[in-house]
Amino acid sequence: MPYLDWVEKPTLLLNEGRARSNIAFMAEKARRAGVRFRPHFKTHQSVEIGAWFREEGVEQITVSSVDMALYFAQAGWKDILLAFSVNWRQRNALRALAEQVHLALLVESAESLAFVDDLGCAVDVWLKVDVGAGRTGVVWDDVQVFEQLVRMPLRSAKLRGLLTHAGHTYGAGGADVVRRVYAQSVERIGCLRQALQSQTGCALEISVGDTPGCSLSEDLGAVDEIRPGNFVFYDAEQAAFGSCPTEWVAVAVACPVVALHPAQEKVVIYGGAVHLSKDFWMQDGQRCYGWVALVNEAGWSAPLTGVFVQALSQEHGMVHWPAKAMGQVRVGDLVCVLPAHSCLTAAALGRYATLDGRWIEMMR
Amino acid sequence: MPYLDWVEKPTLLLNEGRARSNIAFMAEKARRAGVRFRPHFKTHQSVEIGAWFREEGVEQITVSSVDMALYFAQAGWKDILLAFSVNWRQRNALRALAEQVHLALLVESAESLAFVDDLGCAVDVWLKVDVGAGRTGVVWDDVQVFEQLVRMPLRSAKLRGLLTHAGHTYGAGGADVVRRVYAQSVERIGCLRQALQSQTGCALEISVGDTPGCSLSEDLGAVDEIRPGNFVFYDAEQAAFGSCPTEWVAVAVACPVVALHPAQEKVVIYGGAVHLSKDFWMQDGQRCYGWVALVNEAGWSAPLTGVFVQALSQEHGMVHWPAKAMGQVRVGDLVCVLPAHSCLTAAALGRYATLDGRWIEMMR
Repeated sequence: MPYLDWVEKPTLLLNEGRARSNIAFMAEKARRAGVRFRPHFKTHQSVEIGAWFREEGVEQITVSSVDMALYFAQAGWKDILLAFSVNWRQRNALRALAEQVHLALLVESAESLAFVDDLGCAVDVWLKVDVGAGRTGVVWDDVQVFEQLVRMPLRSAKLRGLLTHAGHTYGAGGADVVRRVYAQSVERIGCLRQALQSQTGCALEISVGDTPGCSLSEDLGAVDEIRPGNFVFYDAEQAAFGSCPTEWVAVAVACPVVALHPAQEKVVIYGGAVHLSKDFWMQDGQRCYGWVALVNEAGWSAPLTGVFVQALSQEHGMVHWPAKAMGQVRVGDLVCVLPAHSCLTAAALGRYATLDGRWIEMMR
Repeated sequence: MPYLDWVEKPTLLLNEGRARSNIAFMAEKARRAGVRFRPHFKTHQSVEIGAWFREEGVEQITVSSVDMALYFAQAGWKDILLAFSVNWRQRNALRALAEQVHLALLVESAESLAFVDDLGCAVDVWLKVDVGAGRTGVVWDDVQVFEQLVRMPLRSAKLRGLLTHAGHTYGAGGADVVRRVYAQSVERIGCLRQALQSQTGCALEISVGDTPGCSLSEDLGAVDEIRPGNFVFYDAEQAAFGSCPTEWVAVAVACPVVALHPAQEKVVIYGGAVHLSKDFWMQDGQRCYGWVALVNEAGWSAPLTGVFVQALSQEHGMVHWPAKAMGQVRVGDLVCVLPAHSCLTAAALGRYATLDGRWIEMMR
C-alpha cells in the first residue's frame, strides 16, 4: 500500500533502490581501487539492509558499539571492527564477542592496549590516529607515543594497523576542500606508518573512512581499507556539501502538516527532535535541520527551494515556507523531510518503511 | 546494588528523592496560587513516575502525542490534554482516546476546529496562542482570528479556553527576565481573553506553562491552569539559566571514560548524540551539551568547574577537562553528565536506573 494512504505520524521512508545503488557505487569504488571495503553499519543498524551489502561482496563490517557488534554477530557477520575506543567496563561482553567473531578493537593509549591484551582473546588491534579532526585518537605526528604502543609486547592481541576517521571533511566547504582534506589525512597517516616501519620494523595496515572523502576522492590513496557508513543513505547535509547528488538521498521522514502561518512564512509539522534529532548545519547563516519535499506515489519530490526546517522542539518541526509558495500544502497533508543527519534520524525512529509499505526493522 | 558496580554503558540515573521533591514544590506552588496543576508528562514518559504526581494530588495531565495519551490512558489517567495542534491523520486514534478519557485537544485554525468537531466526540478544545515564542499558534493580538474561532458553532466539541507555551522564557537571560517574559505572556493572553469576552460573551479559561516561568515567578497571575513538565528533573540548561538550584537536577547520564588527552584538555566518554541528544546551550560563547560531575555512592557530585561536554558524535562525547584537573579521572571510570535537555535525553535512553539499582520503565 503506498505510504500516502497509511502514514499517520512521523515515519522514516526508505527508497530501497537508491540505497542499493549507493552501496553498489561505494563497493565498486573500493574494488577499482583495490582496497578492502569494511562499511560502517552504525548508519542503518539493520540486519536486512546489511544483507544488501553482502550481495555486493561485503564480508567485513564496522560498528560503533558492543551491542551493535552482538546484533550483527547474531545475524552471521563474522569479521567485525568495533571502531570505538575500547570500553573497559564491557570486558565480559567483549570476551563473548571475541569467541563468536574475528574481532578488531580500537585503542589510543598503552593502558587500553594492555587491557585488550589482558582479555586473553585473539583480537586484532588498531591504533586510533587523529589526523586533524580533533575528536579522539593520538595526534598523527606524536610518533613517540605510537612507537611506544607498537613496541609493547602482546600475548594474545595482534597489532593490525593505524585507523583514522577524518571527520573534518564534514562541512569542509565544497568538493575540492573535501578532496584536499582526505588526501592530507591519507598522507599524514602514511607518514606515520612509514616512520613506525623504519623505527620498529613493524608493517601496519591503514584504515580510513568518512563518507565525504570516500565519495568525492577519485584516488583513495595508499590505504588498505575504507569504512564509510553514511553513504548508504546520505542526507541533506551531505547533499548540501556536495558529497552526493540530492537524488541519491535514500531516506526521508514523512511528517503530517498540522498548521499553516502564511504571515510568518511558517508551516508546523508533526516531526520534532525525537524524530529528526537536533542535528543541523548552517545554511546561509541559519540553522537547517532538513530540507522539505512534497510527497508523491513514487516517493518524494526534489527538495523545495527556500523551504527548510528552521527549528525543532520535542515533537514539533517549524518549517520556513515562503508565503507565495504555501499553496503547495494544506493541513492534513504529508510532507517529506530530508534530514540533516540520516544516522541520527534512523537511530531515533527505529525502523524503516519502504515505499511499497514494507517495514524493515533495526536493532532495538 | 550501587550503580558504580554494574553500569557498563551510558545509563540514565534518576535521583528519586529529588524528582519527588521537585514535584512537591510545583504542586504546592499551584495549590497556593489556586490554579489547576496539569503537569506535562512528555518529560518523564513513565507510568511509574506519573504515580508520584498522583501522590501529590494530580489527576489531570498534559501529553504531546497521541501515543503518549494512549499510554497514560492505559495506566488509568482519565483527564488528558494533548498539547499538540491536532493531527488530522490520527482521526481513528483520537476517537478511540475520546472514548476512554476526558480528552482536550489543541487547534489554531478554523479548519482544525471543524475537524475536531467532526470527530463527533465530547472533547474540550483549547485555542493555541502565540504570546511571543514564535513557535506555533495564532499571534495573541490577532483578535479577529480568535473571534472567528470563538464564534464557530460547535456540535460535539466544547471550547474551553486559550492556551500558550511561552517557550521564549528558555534562555531569556536570567531570573528577572524570565519573570518579565512570564508576566508579559500572562498579560497578553489575559488581554485576549478580555477582548473575546467583551466581543462574544464567551468566558474562556487560560492555560500556561513553561518550567522557567512557573519555577521563578512568585505570582502565577490570572491563569486557570499551569502545565510545566521539565521541572520534574530540570537539567543543566535550566540550572545554568537559574530556573533551579543545581542540586535540584534529578537526572544524570553515567558514562564510561574511554580516553584521556591532557595535551588537548580533553576526555573522551562513551556517551554521544544517541544518548544525550544533540541539544546544547551557549555557555561563554561555546556550545555546552552538558555539565560533568564525579560519581559517588550517593549519586553524583556537584558539577566540576570548567568541565563540560563540548562536542558529541553518534556514540562519543568529547569533554573539555582542564589538564591540571585531569587527575580526577582515569580510563575505565564512570563520570556523570548532567544533560543540557533532560526531556530529550530521557526519550533517547528509554528507561531510568534509580540510585539503588532499580529500573523504571518508560513508554516505548
